[in-house]
Amino acid sequence: MSSRKSLHIALIGAGRIGSFHAESIARRIPNARLVAVADPAPGAARRLADTLDCEVAHTDPTALWSDPDVDAVLIATPARFHTPLAEAAANAGKHVFCEKPMALTIAEADRVIAAAAANGVQLQVGFNRRWDRAFAEGRAAIDAGKVGTPQLLRSLTRDPGPFRADPAKIPLWTIFFETLIHDFDTLLWLNAGARPVEVHAMADALVRPDAKAGGHLDTAVVTIRFDNGALAVAEANFCATYGYDIRGEVFGSGGMVTMGDVQRSSLRLFDGSGVSSDTWRLDTHHFVDAYTAQIQHFVDVVLQRVEARGPTGAHARAALAVALACIESVKLGRSVALSEVVSP
Amino acid sequence: MSSRKSLHIALIGAGRIGSFHAESIARRIPNARLVAVADPAPGAARRLADTLDCEVAHTDPTALWSDPDVDAVLIATPARFHTPLAEAAANAGKHVFCEKPMALTIAEADRVIAAAAANGVQLQVGFNRRWDRAFAEGRAAIDAGKVGTPQLLRSLTRDPGPFRADPAKIPLWTIFFETLIHDFDTLLWLNAGARPVEVHAMADALVRPDAKAGGHLDTAVVTIRFDNGALAVAEANFCATYGYDIRGEVFGSGGMVTMGDVQRSSLRLFDGSGVSSDTWRLDTHHFVDAYTAQIQHFVDVVLQRVEARGPTGAHARAALAVALACIESVKLGRSVALSEVVSP
Amino acid sequence: MSSRKSLHIALIGAGRIGSFHAESIARRIPNARLVAVADPAPGAARRLADTLDCEVAHTDPTALWSDPDVDAVLIATPARFHTPLAEAAANAGKHVFCEKPMALTIAEADRVIAAAAANGVQLQVGFNRRWDRAFAEGRAAIDAGKVGTPQLLRSLTRDPGPFRADPAKIPLWTIFFETLIHDFDTLLWLNAGARPVEVHAMADALVRPDAKAGGHLDTAVVTIRFDNGALAVAEANFCATYGYDIRGEVFGSGGMVTMGDVQRSSLRLFDGSGVSSDTWRLDTHHFVDAYTAQIQHFVDVVLQRVEARGPTGAHARAALAVALACIESVKLGRSVALSEVVSP
Amino acid sequence: MSSRKSLHIALIGAGRIGSFHAESIARRIPNARLVAVADPAPGAARRLADTLDCEVAHTDPTALWSDPDVDAVLIATPARFHTPLAEAAANAGKHVFCEKPMALTIAEADRVIAAAAANGVQLQVGFNRRWDRAFAEGRAAIDAGKVGTPQLLRSLTRDPGPFRADPAKIPLWTIFFETLIHDFDTLLWLNAGARPVEVHAMADALVRPDAKAGGHLDTAVVTIRFDNGALAVAEANFCATYGYDIRGEVFGSGGMVTMGDVQRSSLRLFDGSGVSSDTWRLDTHHFVDAYTAQIQHFVDVVLQRVEARGPTGAHARAALAVALACIESVKLGRSVALSEVVSP
Repeated sequence: MSSRKSLHIALIGAGRIGSFHAESIARRIPNARLVAVADPAPGAARRLADTLDCEVAHTDPTALWSDPDVDAVLIATPARFHTPLAEAAANAGKHVFCEKPMALTIAEADRVIAAAAANGVQLQVGFNRRWDRAFAEGRAAIDAGKVGTPQLLRSLTRDPGPFRADPAKIPLWTIFFETLIHDFDTLLWLNAGARPVEVHAMADALVRPDAKAGGHLDTAVVTIRFDNGALAVAEANFCATYGYDIRGEVFGSGGMVTMGDVQRSSLRLFDGSGVSSDTWRLDTHHFVDAYTAQIQHFVDVVLQRVEARGPTGAHARAALAVALACIESVKLGRSVALSEVVSP
Repeated sequence: MSSRKSLHIALIGAGRIGSFHAESIARRIPNARLVAVADPAPGAARRLADTLDCEVAHTDPTALWSDPDVDAVLIATPARFHTPLAEAAANAGKHVFCEKPMALTIAEADRVIAAAAANGVQLQVGFNRRWDRAFAEGRAAIDAGKVGTPQLLRSLTRDPGPFRADPAKIPLWTIFFETLIHDFDTLLWLNAGARPVEVHAMADALVRPDAKAGGHLDTAVVTIRFDNGALAVAEANFCATYGYDIRGEVFGSGGMVTMGDVQRSSLRLFDGSGVSSDTWRLDTHHFVDAYTAQIQHFVDVVLQRVEARGPTGAHARAALAVALACIESVKLGRSVALSEVVSP
Repeated sequence: MSSRKSLHIALIGAGRIGSFHAESIARRIPNARLVAVADPAPGAARRLADTLDCEVAHTDPTALWSDPDVDAVLIATPARFHTPLAEAAANAGKHVFCEKPMALTIAEADRVIAAAAANGVQLQVGFNRRWDRAFAEGRAAIDAGKVGTPQLLRSLTRDPGPFRADPAKIPLWTIFFETLIHDFDTLLWLNAGARPVEVHAMADALVRPDAKAGGHLDTAVVTIRFDNGALAVAEANFCATYGYDIRGEVFGSGGMVTMGDVQRSSLRLFDGSGVSSDTWRLDTHHFVDAYTAQIQHFVDVVLQRVEARGPTGAHARAALAVALACIESVKLGRSVALSEVVSP
Repeated sequence: MSSRKSLHIALIGAGRIGSFHAESIARRIPNARLVAVADPAPGAARRLADTLDCEVAHTDPTALWSDPDVDAVLIATPARFHTPLAEAAANAGKHVFCEKPMALTIAEADRVIAAAAANGVQLQVGFNRRWDRAFAEGRAAIDAGKVGTPQLLRSLTRDPGPFRADPAKIPLWTIFFETLIHDFDTLLWLNAGARPVEVHAMADALVRPDAKAGGHLDTAVVTIRFDNGALAVAEANFCATYGYDIRGEVFGSGGMVTMGDVQRSSLRLFDGSGVSSDTWRLDTHHFVDAYTAQIQHFVDVVLQRVEARGPTGAHARAALAVALACIESVKLGRSVALSEVVSP
């Protein structure tokens, strides 16, 4: 592989976001090549591979471990498979780009981190928000001291409606493990150098109250206290009628930065109803550049041209700890110290 | 009058804007008092006076000239009466606040200016835009050198639709004399110290093409060249479906300022249609503070507490000259030098 | 009084906000008259009265109770005097406009409410945010069903820096009693018809960490759960370098409204540093219209022309209950049910 | 070529924008391949080719005509070479993507159009603004009737300062031929179906007044009257201190659309100076997506997958006619009919 000009990547998981990543690899990243697709659903891998001129398709991802044409894997399966696949891939010497959440327990996270370290492979996690222009510029402004010491932070995720999924098929605690995990990583990343110490969460089923009895939660507000004093709020909801809404705010002793706008372009329409603009409806539209940039970076790191600065296993573990504390907080109805869910 | 704590003002012209000004005098300006209303339409003055607890109403404005209870007049009649009323009021020793346009010919303008000077009365013209917060701050920024030397300016007026007036009852050239006169004053005021030297105008009846044969014009674009090199565009239309649209822009060697927003408040609504905001529908809503501030200033000047800094007869004359040059330009189909319509 | 055309109001408390209100009464509200000023500080009432052409000044506010020229009082003293003054004024038959907080305990709130009811006087509380154009339009949009059922709300207050006060002179819990009380009222008012059931608060001294030992708190994040399921966040900080920042957000099943903008006007400056706008630096600038509108409404209600729709003693009591629950939450380090601090 | 999966493109002109396009071809467009670079400057083609892993470099572009590995050329030379190169390439059977302006006279434009038609090759012109998301959405809104019949249009170009070029080396009339040509195309495209009938231009050397004697012009305002009555303003300046400013506005009988924002991302910084945002400093940053999309479209058209909808030789000719009328207008000091410079 060392002499290759392009990184050969296999995709595992040919669902919505996996297919999008495959297309990024095949079409938007010049020095990457999609060399295989794996998905247990009959025909799914084959169909995706065909549309992207990729020859190899598997129903069993373990077939990739021994394939010398595969330099790296991108894991975009349902969350519960992330850990075993990431660990196995690392142990097979493959570089790993893993969608969030990398793991659902601290022990799992530790296993993936250890496997990557032991095998000397890159391990990057899909916290795409870091690669968005506004969020990246926001972090740079914070690093440059433009907001002083952070005191109040906010990060929110609102998925676009209508909400059509069957709540019964959504794993418990998804709002923390899969949705707010983005906001936890964002807050930890923006409040760089500080560590979360205490978490309080309120959550409910407001979009689908009928599904609450089954444990489904679709709306949550989380407060986090950091060891530098900063207080942060993370907020999520599964059904924003107006589209995909991702925003961040960092207020500090010296000022504030805000990031994120649901407005899709600079187009404004003025008519009898007033002034209006279209909004982002899909993450893959809003964050197409961020989604591409994170994989581009992964590729460039592996091809050894640049220093790794993407989110790693350790970042995934830190965000996971906040999610676990949130779940405890909801269960216990009180604030939870991070030290209750993870040893430092 | 010298010992009065409130300025006693008589309104002449009880139409839409006159009634609004009367209400400002009676209700929004503590040191002013509405002491009389005059309007030739039977009952119009009486009805307005009654709603504002004003006792005196006339159908003949000349009754005001000899009334010692009247310190000042606010002239808000149809434009063709502005000059004779302003001149007569000044000659009667009354201070004059005159709605735009103060005059329709340079000779008329000179007569009003001379009468005010001869009688030592204040003469202020209703160029309200100067008193809007954003425009005032824009001029201050320009004065502070923040845009450097102006090079490109823009001012526009779009009246809110639907257009319901009968074009046959609108005087010829109204778009220049009554609408764009605001923009001409704004441009001359923002490009402070420079003088317009050349004007080119294109105009048409696009809102009511059927009225074009009668000479009605409802849409115009004017280019002005100033003696400091700056090029300015003024633009007007009588029917903006989205409301009342007033904007200004000054671009210079050091930067740019923009002023004006049709958005009515900071409220934004996000729903299935995207993001939207309400717009200003009426000048008297958008500019309620500016309309009040200009009369407040007039009152304070007359009561001798502050130095006059409002638009005067000379400013009205300068804006009128641009309007006259526009009319020539439309008639002749070519650029017109200011020197063709007015001696400096 | 019944035959008066203007409401005669006495101000109690000639500090910063009291002086501003006095000026509103004297200059911005045509059918109100400032007839007396009371303040215990030697000379303070007299000095303010003189600047506003008001003849009567007292150092003892109780002198107002028997003055037949006083129809109503506006109480703008330090918070701890609000309850006794409001109660005494009501018992003297004076209408009461009371700055927030109206009371510091539920028992106190009940006493003021009872006194107003027993004496048949109006009681309005200074929750000025309700009178801001954007917030009022936001509530109207919610009432019109444009956001559906509220699910996530946000209200924040950030006072303009620099923070110059002596923390030792600020009463304990001021951030809840005097600052966030605005946000609590705003949230209860926007989530109309719902009742808060549970509160969680995190607070700290981040602006002045040296003052924390003395109990001073300057930064807080509060989460509120309502009985309609909605989750709300209120947030405050005493030192925003960029000025006075008041924002609101209501997200629901049908959409979202956002209210509040720190940008002072539509002026935008473009230069080598990018695009910039000025911000609001003072509440009395940002909310001059809202401050005036609330007193205007009070006056109009008493003069019997309009139905009362301003915040009453009951609203002050409801917001106070949230503040009390916050204080318990901070003391106990856990969520607090509203039922723990107030009987329904 | 018919069986190729990638379009083989040769770049002619390895200057700033040519190099950027070469990079787009090599890195951002998966089904295109950069197969050669030609530039007469010694070493220029070689250096660029090397950075992009392209093997072939020429100092003489005519070497490309007979190269069977070249399917298409992208012409990014100085403007005066566009016509001969485009014509020769078409006659050699190469598809042509030509930077604006395609020609400097109507006769030249006709020659290129004829050569492309005679040889059955694609001819697309680099009017990149059409491919910007906001402008494309604006045109779609107009097509959907959302602004009704266009009445007032505006398009502007302000190049980012500081202005460092030597005016003596800039060809005469560049502001019309190379800068405003973008705005003319944009206006003609947005006011779809209408034809320009009359043009008036004012231009000056305000950025570099010292260069005016040499004929250099850096600031211009153009008014265009269309045969559907619409009046349009195009405006340009060579030195905007705040960056690259491209905006469009179409006002019509039913509403208005505005397009373009100098703000670079959604990041906003709030500090002691107010609120600020960064601006776009370079066209290749602001329009990276538009620049890529136009070449992507060209490639897709040639590879026969999609119908051609990009700007063609006829569009280049139409925009050129406006530029020629502007030049006449400046020379003659009067409005110029389009019929004076081109037969329909």
